[in-house]
Amino acid sequence: MTATAPVPAASAAVPWEERPAGTDTVLWRSSRNPIVEPAQLPRANSIFNSAVVPFGDGYAGVFRVDDTTRAMNVHAGRSADGVEWEIDPAPISFVAADERVAEIQQEFLYAYDPRVTWLEDRYYVTWCNGYHGPTIGIAYTRDFETFRQLDNAFLPFNRNGVLFPRRVGNRYAMLSRPSDDGHTPFGDIYWSESPDLVHWGRHRHVMGTVPWSWQSTKIGAGPTPIETEEGWLLLYHGVLTSCNGFVYSLGAALLDLDEPWNVVARGRDYLLAPQAGYERVGDVPNVVFPCAALVDRELDRLTVYYGGADTVVCLAHGHLSEVLASVRR
Amino acid sequence: MTATAPVPAASAAVPWEERPAGTDTVLWRSSRNPIVEPAQLPRANSIFNSAVVPFGDGYAGVFRVDDTTRAMNVHAGRSADGVEWEIDPAPISFVAADERVAEIQQEFLYAYDPRVTWLEDRYYVTWCNGYHGPTIGIAYTRDFETFRQLDNAFLPFNRNGVLFPRRVGNRYAMLSRPSDDGHTPFGDIYWSESPDLVHWGRHRHVMGTVPWSWQSTKIGAGPTPIETEEGWLLLYHGVLTSCNGFVYSLGAALLDLDEPWNVVARGRDYLLAPQAGYERVGDVPNVVFPCAALVDRELDRLTVYYGGADTVVCLAHGHLSEVLASVRR
Amino acid sequence: MTATAPVPAASAAVPWEERPAGTDTVLWRSSRNPIVEPAQLPRANSIFNSAVVPFGDGYAGVFRVDDTTRAMNVHAGRSADGVEWEIDPAPISFVAADERVAEIQQEFLYAYDPRVTWLEDRYYVTWCNGYHGPTIGIAYTRDFETFRQLDNAFLPFNRNGVLFPRRVGNRYAMLSRPSDDGHTPFGDIYWSESPDLVHWGRHRHVMGTVPWSWQSTKIGAGPTPIETEEGWLLLYHGVLTSCNGFVYSLGAALLDLDEPWNVVARGRDYLLAPQAGYERVGDVPNVVFPCAALVDRELDRLTVYYGGADTVVCLAHGHLSEVLASVRR
Amino acid sequence: MTATAPVPAASAAVPWEERPAGTDTVLWRSSRNPIVEPAQLPRANSIFNSAVVPFGDGYAGVFRVDDTTRAMNVHAGRSADGVEWEIDPAPISFVAADERVAEIQQEFLYAYDPRVTWLEDRYYVTWCNGYHGPTIGIAYTRDFETFRQLDNAFLPFNRNGVLFPRRVGNRYAMLSRPSDDGHTPFGDIYWSESPDLVHWGRHRHVMGTVPWSWQSTKIGAGPTPIETEEGWLLLYHGVLTSCNGFVYSLGAALLDLDEPWNVVARGRDYLLAPQAGYERVGDVPNVVFPCAALVDRELDRLTVYYGGADTVVCLAHGHLSEVLASVRR
Amino acid sequence: MTATAPVPAASAAVPWEERPAGTDTVLWRSSRNPIVEPAQLPRANSIFNSAVVPFGDGYAGVFRVDDTTRAMNVHAGRSADGVEWEIDPAPISFVAADERVAEIQQEFLYAYDPRVTWLEDRYYVTWCNGYHGPTIGIAYTRDFETFRQLDNAFLPFNRNGVLFPRRVGNRYAMLSRPSDDGHTPFGDIYWSESPDLVHWGRHRHVMGTVPWSWQSTKIGAGPTPIETEEGWLLLYHGVLTSCNGFVYSLGAALLDLDEPWNVVARGRDYLLAPQAGYERVGDVPNVVFPCAALVDRELDRLTVYYGGADTVVCLAHGHLSEVLASVRR
Amino acid sequence: MTATAPVPAASAAVPWEERPAGTDTVLWRSSRNPIVEPAQLPRANSIFNSAVVPFGDGYAGVFRVDDTTRAMNVHAGRSADGVEWEIDPAPISFVAADERVAEIQQEFLYAYDPRVTWLEDRYYVTWCNGYHGPTIGIAYTRDFETFRQLDNAFLPFNRNGVLFPRRVGNRYAMLSRPSDDGHTPFGDIYWSESPDLVHWGRHRHVMGTVPWSWQSTKIGAGPTPIETEEGWLLLYHGVLTSCNGFVYSLGAALLDLDEPWNVVARGRDYLLAPQAGYERVGDVPNVVFPCAALVDRELDRLTVYYGGADTVVCLAHGHLSEVLASVRR
Repeated sequence: MTATAPVPAASAAVPWEERPAGTDTVLWRSSRNPIVEPAQLPRANSIFNSAVVPFGDGYAGVFRVDDTTRAMNVHAGRSADGVEWEIDPAPISFVAADERVAEIQQEFLYAYDPRVTWLEDRYYVTWCNGYHGPTIGIAYTRDFETFRQLDNAFLPFNRNGVLFPRRVGNRYAMLSRPSDDGHTPFGDIYWSESPDLVHWGRHRHVMGTVPWSWQSTKIGAGPTPIETEEGWLLLYHGVLTSCNGFVYSLGAALLDLDEPWNVVARGRDYLLAPQAGYERVGDVPNVVFPCAALVDRELDRLTVYYGGADTVVCLAHGHLSEVLASVRR
Repeated sequence: MTATAPVPAASAAVPWEERPAGTDTVLWRSSRNPIVEPAQLPRANSIFNSAVVPFGDGYAGVFRVDDTTRAMNVHAGRSADGVEWEIDPAPISFVAADERVAEIQQEFLYAYDPRVTWLEDRYYVTWCNGYHGPTIGIAYTRDFETFRQLDNAFLPFNRNGVLFPRRVGNRYAMLSRPSDDGHTPFGDIYWSESPDLVHWGRHRHVMGTVPWSWQSTKIGAGPTPIETEEGWLLLYHGVLTSCNGFVYSLGAALLDLDEPWNVVARGRDYLLAPQAGYERVGDVPNVVFPCAALVDRELDRLTVYYGGADTVVCLAHGHLSEVLASVRR
Repeated sequence: MTATAPVPAASAAVPWEERPAGTDTVLWRSSRNPIVEPAQLPRANSIFNSAVVPFGDGYAGVFRVDDTTRAMNVHAGRSADGVEWEIDPAPISFVAADERVAEIQQEFLYAYDPRVTWLEDRYYVTWCNGYHGPTIGIAYTRDFETFRQLDNAFLPFNRNGVLFPRRVGNRYAMLSRPSDDGHTPFGDIYWSESPDLVHWGRHRHVMGTVPWSWQSTKIGAGPTPIETEEGWLLLYHGVLTSCNGFVYSLGAALLDLDEPWNVVARGRDYLLAPQAGYERVGDVPNVVFPCAALVDRELDRLTVYYGGADTVVCLAHGHLSEVLASVRR
Repeated sequence: MTATAPVPAASAAVPWEERPAGTDTVLWRSSRNPIVEPAQLPRANSIFNSAVVPFGDGYAGVFRVDDTTRAMNVHAGRSADGVEWEIDPAPISFVAADERVAEIQQEFLYAYDPRVTWLEDRYYVTWCNGYHGPTIGIAYTRDFETFRQLDNAFLPFNRNGVLFPRRVGNRYAMLSRPSDDGHTPFGDIYWSESPDLVHWGRHRHVMGTVPWSWQSTKIGAGPTPIETEEGWLLLYHGVLTSCNGFVYSLGAALLDLDEPWNVVARGRDYLLAPQAGYERVGDVPNVVFPCAALVDRELDRLTVYYGGADTVVCLAHGHLSEVLASVRR
Repeated sequence: MTATAPVPAASAAVPWEERPAGTDTVLWRSSRNPIVEPAQLPRANSIFNSAVVPFGDGYAGVFRVDDTTRAMNVHAGRSADGVEWEIDPAPISFVAADERVAEIQQEFLYAYDPRVTWLEDRYYVTWCNGYHGPTIGIAYTRDFETFRQLDNAFLPFNRNGVLFPRRVGNRYAMLSRPSDDGHTPFGDIYWSESPDLVHWGRHRHVMGTVPWSWQSTKIGAGPTPIETEEGWLLLYHGVLTSCNGFVYSLGAALLDLDEPWNVVARGRDYLLAPQAGYERVGDVPNVVFPCAALVDRELDRLTVYYGGADTVVCLAHGHLSEVLASVRR
Repeated sequence: MTATAPVPAASAAVPWEERPAGTDTVLWRSSRNPIVEPAQLPRANSIFNSAVVPFGDGYAGVFRVDDTTRAMNVHAGRSADGVEWEIDPAPISFVAADERVAEIQQEFLYAYDPRVTWLEDRYYVTWCNGYHGPTIGIAYTRDFETFRQLDNAFLPFNRNGVLFPRRVGNRYAMLSRPSDDGHTPFGDIYWSESPDLVHWGRHRHVMGTVPWSWQSTKIGAGPTPIETEEGWLLLYHGVLTSCNGFVYSLGAALLDLDEPWNVVARGRDYLLAPQAGYERVGDVPNVVFPCAALVDRELDRLTVYYGGADTVVCLAHGHLSEVLASVRR
C-alpha cells in the first residue's frame, strides 16, 4: 500500500469540445487553437511545449517561453478553465533544495520543455536543464510560486525526462531520452528508477524508433503516463526526417503496469501530425509536441496540451477509450 | 515499323483551363488546385507525386499515398474527367509476373513516386521500390486492377525511373537517377535500354546538374517523355539547396528522337517553382514534383500532374508549342 | 577636416508609418509589406535583400533579383517615395574601373545582397561577388546608370561587406564576414581599412556570435552604419539554427566612433524576427535580412529595408532614439 | 552440359610455400611478400589490388598501377611462376567491342581494382571504370595484348564487380557492390545475371555487413568465385571503421551452387587482417584487399593475391579444405 | 573512519626499470614493450587497454581482447611479476548479481576498455558495456574467476567509467565520460556518486578539453585515481584530431581529496604520446591509452599499463613525486 | 630597375648529395634524413615544416616546433652547413612593428608553417597566425634575433602565405590559400599584392586542384618562388584524400614572370610523395610538406627542406634544370 496524498481533485472541468461532424480521427483539434500565443507575454518570442495540471479550483502550468533574445526559460501560469491562461512575466527562479544543488546552479544556461506531475504529496517539474549539455532537471512545488530544485537526474546528454505519477515497485520512476549535444538525429525512450529522486539506476531500454514511419528518427515521452487497467498509456512524440528537416508527430503506446519498461502494445498510426497552419508554419515548421494531458475518466475524455511549430500552445481532444483501442489495433 | 497496339484514344477531353488574364508564364496553375487532397482517403496522411493516363472513357492513375503510419504506398484510381478522382483505399497488391519475381517480394518496404506509360499493348507502372535500398520497380496492368510485377530494373540505389512510350532502336528504354540511400544531395539523369524489360544495359549519362540554378543539386525525369517532331520532350524536376533545405522546381528539355541519350536543347528557366501556398507549405515545404502529363496535340494543350509540398496533387496547363519554344529559347 | 562632397539631401520624406496602436516593440512592420514582390519584374523569381539611398528628388536602390533560372543578380531601381519602385528589367552591367579589373570580370557567376553608401562624392555599391567563391565586390556610381567596378576587396570566402559612410582615421573602412563556400554555419563581423579602396589591411575582429540566442550561429552587418553621437549604430542580422534550418533575425549594436572595431554596446534582444507570413513562408522560410536604412534625424525616424523569406522586400519603422536606447538597455 | 572451352590448364605450378612452423592460422603469408613493388615500373607510385590467371606456360595478370600523377590505371603482366612479374609500362588500351561502346570511351577517367576470369573461351576482365562515377567495366582478351571492351554492366555507382567462371542457370553472372561516389561508408554484395554480358537483371541481395565485426562497414567480392562441391567459395574483403579510418580484412563465404544469391555458410573470423608491415604502412594504412586466387585441387592448395596498404602486391597460402572448413565452423 | 578490508598487500614487487641514461622525461617506456601481444592468445586479433591489480602473490588483470571476428571482450589473466601474463582463452562470463541484472544480459554486444579497483572488500571491474549503445558495466570478483555483474551505472551513451578506490563523503564515486554512439568527437570527465553502486546521482562536471593542445578533442579517465596527500592523482587520456585521425596521449591532473569534482591542478604537457613504433603503427595508429597504474610509495615508483595502437599492452615507469610535480608545474 | 640591397651571398655551400646510383627520379632524398628530429630540443614533440635561408657565413632558419602540450610555435635556428642545426629553445617573441599591431598580439593562439624570404633589405617571415582563426602573419628580421611583426595580411581563414622575393610590377606580392577553420578539405592558390606589406588587394586565382590526382583535394604554395628565365618556379604541396586521410605530396609549376597569377606550365607528376618511413609514420602519417629551397645556379643544384609526417625536417635534392624540364614535360 502506498501512503501518498491523493491527487488533488480538479474542481474545474477538463477543457473539452465534442468531435466535429465529419471527423473520424481518434484525436481532434480545439477550435480555439492556438490557446496560448507569444503576444500574451511581453518580450516573448514564443510560448509552446508546456505542461498543465489540475490545481486548486482550476489549473496551473509550467510554460516554455523563449524570449526575444531567444533565451529558453520556464514560467508558471494559472487558469480557471485550462484554456485562458495568466502566465508570469518572470521565469521560475528555482531555489536549491539542498546545499549541493547550489553547485549546479551557478550558471543558468537554459530550461525548456517542462513536464509536471503530481507525485505523492507535491507537484514535480522535470525539464531539459542546461548543465554542460542538456540533461534532466527536477524540482517540486506545492503552490506554483516556490520551486525547489533537486539535483539533475542524469549525466548529460538527455532530454524529455517524464516522471511516473506514483512509485512503481516502491521506486520513483522516470522515462527519458539519452541524446547528444545538438539537434540529435537519434533517440529512444529509456526507463530509470530511484529510491530518493536523487540517485538513479536500473536503466532499461523501453522503445526504439520504427523504420519507414512517422517515428523513424527519434522518439520521446510526452505527458505524464496515464494509469489505466490495461497498462500505462504513454503519449509520445515521434520524428521523421524529410529532406527539409524534422517532422514531429504524436502517437501512443501501452506500458506494462508493474514493469513499465516492457511495452504491451504500440500504435502504428500517429494520432496527430502537423497539418494545421499553426503546426506547419512557425519558428520550427511541422511540429506537434505533446507535454501534458488531462483525463476525465468518468466522461471518457482526454485532452492533450501540445506545442505547435515551436511557437504556440494547442489543445487536442479525444476519448480515452478510443485512444486505448487505437494502440491495440 | 513497330507493330504495337495503338495507344488507346482517350475519349475524355484533357483537363484544361485557359491562361488567366494578366499571366504570361509558359505554364499556369489550375484554379481547382489542389485537385487531390489527403482528406479524400481514410488513413491517408498525404496524396501526391502521382501518375495519370487516359483509360477507357476517362482516366486512370496510380497515386502515391503515405498513410498515417507514414508508410509509403501506391494506389490505383479512376476518374471521368481527370480532376475528380476515386482512389482505391487499399494499396496495389502486385502479383509476381514470374516465379523469380516472388524472391524480391518477400518483404514489402515501400513504394513511391509512380509513373505510368502505355507501351505496346499495356500500361507499365514504374516506381521507387524498396529492396535493400531504393530501386526501380516495374509492373504492368491492362485494367488497373491486376498489376503484374517484373523484376527490379536496376541495382539499388536508384529513383525516378521513367519508361519511354515506345521502343527506341528496337529496345525498351528507361531514364533513371542513380542515387544513394538517403536524401541524396546529388543526381543526374541516365539512359538504359533492354531487350525484354528484365535485363538492362547500354547505360548512358543524359543530363547533369547546372551550377547556380534551380537545378544545381540534382535532377530527375518526370512524366513519360512526349514524342514530338523536334525530339522527346522531357519534363523533369530540378532541385536547389537553400540554407533551409531542398527546393524542387519543374523544367523541360528536348532529347534526340533516335538517340535520346543526346540532349538537343534544354530550357534555362524553370517552368514552375513552388510559389503557391500548397507548394510552399506541407509535409515537405517548397516542392513541385511532376509525374505525368496529358497532351492534346490538336488543341496544342499540355496538362501536367504534379505533387505539391509532398502533400497534394495539382495541375498545371500550358500550350505544347510554347513549352517547346521555351526549351529552345 | 575631410573635404568631401556633402551627402545629397533627400528632398523626399523618409517613408514612414506611426507605431500601430497596441504595439510596444522598438520596430514595427509597414502595413504595405511586402513593398516589392517578384511579380513586378518579368522573369523574376524573387526580389529581396536590397539597398536604398536618397537620390535626387527621391530614392534610388540596388535590388537583389533572382530570376527564373535562379541566377542571382543586382538591378538598379528608382522611386519617388521609397515605397513604389521601378526596377530595371536588366541587371546592372558593371564597367571595369581600370584595366586590371577586367581580369576578374571574364566570367560572371553571381552577384547578391547589395549595400549602397554615399561616400565622399559618389555612391558605392558593395555586394557578394562570385570569383572562385563568394567575396566582396565594390563599384561606384553617380547616376545609378553607369557603375564602375573596382577590384574585389578581399580573398574569398567572404559575404556581407558594408562600407562606412566616411573615412575613419583617414582610411576607408569596411565590415565583412569571412565564411566558407556554402551555407556557412559560422561567421563573425570583422573590420578592414584601406587607403584607396583597393588594398585592404588592419583586419580586426569586431563581434562574434552569442550562445543560446537568436545570433548563435553567425552574424553579418546589415545597412551602412549610422553615425550618432553615441557611436556608429550597426543594424545586423543574426542567425540561429533550429532543427529545421537557419532563422535570420535583426538586431543592433553600437561601435566606437573612432575605433569602430571596438563594440560600445550590443542589444541582447532582436528587434525583428520572422513572424509575419511573408517572413515565415517563401523561398527560404524564416528570414528577416536588413540591407539598408533611412534616417530622419529631425523627426527621430528610422526606416529599415529588409528581405522577407528570401522572396520580397519589406519595411520596418522605429524611432532612432528608441533603437539606440534598446542597444544600451 | 555447358559446351565451353576448357579452362586452359596451367602448366606451371601454383605458387606455394608450406605453412611456417608454429603457425596455425588458416592462411599464411608468403615469405617473399611483397612480390610486386612500385619500384619495378617507371613512374609507378604503387602496384596493388591485381588479378592473376594461368596463361600459357605460366601466368598472366592485370595489375592496378597508380602512377606518379596518382592516376589510376590497369596494366597487363606476364610471369613464369606467378611470383616474378613483367608488367607492361603502358596501361591497357581498351578497344571498343562494338561501335556503341565507343560512346563511353570518349574520356578516360580511371580504371582500378581489376579481376580476371576465364569464361567459356576467353579471359574476361572486370574493373572499376570511371563513367560519371565509378561503375563496372568489362572487357575480354585471349592474349593479354588486345582487350576488347564491352559496355559497362551497371549504372554508376558501383565497385568490385566479379564474374562467375561459368554460366549459372544458363546466364552469365556477376557479383558487385553498389556504392556512392566517394569513400563509401556502406556496401553489400549483390548478384546480377545476363544473357549476353551487356544487359543485366535479376538483381539479388547476397550478403550484408555484420555489426561489431571486421566486416561492419562494407563488404565486396574478391577473387573469382571458386566452384567446390559444397558451393561457390567466395573470398571477399570486409571493412571496419576505426576512429582513424577504414581497416580492410579478408574473409570467406559459401554460396549455393545453383542459386548463388543464397548464402550457404559464412565464416565469422577473418582469414587475413592487416598485421604485416607492408599491410599496415603505405599509401592507405591497414589494407588487405584480395583480387585473385589460384587453386591446385589435387594438392589442396589455395594461393591468394592481395593488395597491401594500397601500395604492393602480396601472396597468402592455405589449404582449400581448411578454408572451406573455416567457413562452416 | 571507513571500516573496509585493507587493500591486499602485493607481495610481488611493482614492475620497474630505472630511467634510461640520457632521458629526462617524467615517464619512460619499458624496454620489454610491448609486454603483451596478440600472438599470446589463440584467435586474438589484439590485446590492449587492460587493467592490472596486485593479487595474491602476484598480479591479476582484466584484458581487452578483440578476437579474429573483431568482437570485443574482456578476459581475466594472472601474472607473477606483472610482466609475463597468462590470459584466459575464454572471455569472462559475467554472472548476474541479482535477478534484475539478468534483464540486461539477454544479448551480449561487446565489452571493452576495463578498469579494476580494490574497493572495501573486493575487486570491482568497470568497462564499456554494450546495451543499446555503450554504457558503463560494473561487476565484482574476489578471485578473478567468478565475476558478479551489477546493473549498468548510467544510461547510454558513456565510456571510460572509473571507480574511486574508497568512498568519498560516504558515497561510492565514479568518473565517466558521456559521449554518443560512434567515434565521439567530444567528451569531458564527470563525477557521479552512489549509496549502493546501483543508483547514481550528484553528477558534476570535472574537467573539459583544452583548445590547441594534445587534449583538445576529448578526454577520459584512465587508471583508478591514486590517493596522495596533495589530492587524487588522475592519469587520463586526451585526444587531438589531426587531419588523419585521432591521436591519444597520456596526461595527469590532481583532484581535491574531499570534493574530487574540483580540480586542484592540471598538467599542461602530456606525459606520454605515441612515438614508439608499437604506439604509432597498429590497428589504430597513434594511440597511447592508460587503464591501470601500480604504485610503490616507499620506492616512489609509478608503473602505468597502457594500450599501444589498439594492438598491444605496454608499460611506462616514473617516480610518483615527479609526476605530481609535473602536474603542479 | 629596383634599388634593393642584394641578396646576401651565402658563403656556405648549398647542402648537397649526388643522385644515388640506380635512381632516375627528378628529386632524391638526403641519406641524412631526417636532418632535424624532436629529440634535439627539450619539450619538443615534433620539429617540421620549417624554412631556411642563407645567413652570414652559413644558414638561418625558422622552425615549426610543437611542444609537449602540442602548442604550435616558431623558433629561430642557425647552422653552418644547413644540415646540423642549433634551434633556440624559446619560441620567437614577435615585437610589434607599430602600435596598431599590438592590438592583434594580445592573445597568442598559435604560429606554424613558417616561410622566410630575403626581400629588398631584410628577411621576412610569414606563417599561419592564429587570430580568430588561422590567417597570415608577417614579420621581418635582420639578425634572426629580433623579429618585428606587421599586421596580418588577410582576414581569416587563410594558410600557406608565401612572399615573392622581389616586387613585381612595383608591388609586394604574396601567394596564399584561403581556407576554413579546420582540416580544410579544399583550397586553391591565390595571388595578392600590396604597396606597403600592410594593405593587400588585386587578389587573383592562380591555380586550383586537379581531379583524380595527387593534388585533388587542396594545394598550397611551398618555398619562396624561385626566379628563372622561364618564369617563377613554384614548388608546392598537393593533397589527395584516401579513405584513411590526407596524403601530402610535392610538385612544381611555372608562373609568368611579370604576371605571376598566370600559370605558364604545371607538372603533372609529383616530385616527391610520402614513401620513406619518416614520411609515412609519425604524428600525421603520409606527409611531405616543403617550406624552403636553396639554389646554387652555377652548379644547377636545388635543395628542398620539407617536413616529414608532421614530425621531422628532411632534405631532398635535384638539379634545377631537371625540375624545370619536368614542369614543362
